[in-house]
Amino acid sequence: MAVMSRSKVGGKRPKGERTREGILRVAVNLASVEGLDGLTIGRLADELKMSKSGLFAHFGSKEDLQLATIEMARVIFVEHVIIPALREPEGLPRLWALCDRWLRHVEERIFTGGCFFTAASFEFDSRPGPVRDAIAAAMKRWMETLNHAVQEAKKCGHLKSSVDPPQLAFEIYSLAIGAHWASELLDDQKALRKARDTIRERIRVSTTANSPAAKVRR
Amino acid sequence: MAVMSRSKVGGKRPKGERTREGILRVAVNLASVEGLDGLTIGRLADELKMSKSGLFAHFGSKEDLQLATIEMARVIFVEHVIIPALREPEGLPRLWALCDRWLRHVEERIFTGGCFFTAASFEFDSRPGPVRDAIAAAMKRWMETLNHAVQEAKKCGHLKSSVDPPQLAFEIYSLAIGAHWASELLDDQKALRKARDTIRERIRVSTTANSPAAKVRR
Repeated sequence: MAVMSRSKVGGKRPKGERTREGILRVAVNLASVEGLDGLTIGRLADELKMSKSGLFAHFGSKEDLQLATIEMARVIFVEHVIIPALREPEGLPRLWALCDRWLRHVEERIFTGGCFFTAASFEFDSRPGPVRDAIAAAMKRWMETLNHAVQEAKKCGHLKSSVDPPQLAFEIYSLAIGAHWASELLDDQKALRKARDTIRERIRVSTTANSPAAKVRR
Repeated sequence: MAVMSRSKVGGKRPKGERTREGILRVAVNLASVEGLDGLTIGRLADELKMSKSGLFAHFGSKEDLQLATIEMARVIFVEHVIIPALREPEGLPRLWALCDRWLRHVEERIFTGGCFFTAASFEFDSRPGPVRDAIAAAMKRWMETLNHAVQEAKKCGHLKSSVDPPQLAFEIYSLAIGAHWASELLDDQKALRKARDTIRERIRVSTTANSPAAKVRR
């Protein structure tokens, strides 16, 4: 009995977590297409062909669901963009890998609707509350990651000492967001490649003679 | 009688138009804060303290209201950004005025929520239909205006012949959109000024010796 109970308890929690994760992966893609505000318990239940009460067992409210969806999107972004980039050597290779992987996660439609966080940012920027705070916190962490990679590249002697890390991170970010916009709204098929070329050129003019060449993927 | 009728008819249409315009100016600001999808007849009626049936007389459906709101936002953008810039001489002064006025309309909160079109772009980019088409058409016109101003500045000999107008327009656009994002989501008070400085520097490196200096407003 005791063994069975343990086994039941031990087996049940991971399954519940797996179910929750499966639900959230669908929620992330749905929100990336239809917006985070359109992500209601009812809409998600329709999509999953689950009962609303079944979903309420996982998420007590629309806001809980939105917050859990943002956290899942962050985990997916870290998996696809940050972890692979951290495998590259410090300095320019890592900075470039962050930029490249970031554009690639949009090109490869890791989120069905494109860039989850860019869309969420613009959807919630004027709406104070926990959802906006969670999006802003995730984006700040990403900006700090970019900023830190620029600082490292300076320390390694790959970027000129005159480079202002927050300024370069801002320019890189802006070019990626602009490409996302042109690709999604104007169906500009070349936008992401154009952003990649522009970011590479922007970084290149700031490199030193000691800098390794950025690996280019076209 | 005939005179009265004419006067009634003559007076009625402009009043109806003025009412419609007044409603749409509120709708534009509401949509800039709460999103264009949140702009329902019911929500707008609450805001205006009007009856829903009164609003239905002006706009037959939510989509009609959204499309009319986009058109009103475009008219306001033209009034505040494009017309003043067209008063500047062709070439670099006009290109710079377009960039400067564009950032200024966000700084001065011409739309309560910031940049109406940037927010609308990201809200609707993954949702096919007439609303997305109207936003995309307005943005394409704006990109063409920027592109054309860069071409003119090349023709005037203010910008180097090596400048690629769509590429420069894309970079300018991206920097402004990035600043809008940082200012709205991260409450970065310096973001718009940083974008203005970065755009000016980006244009400056492309100018010829014959170019007039861009008028700078700090």
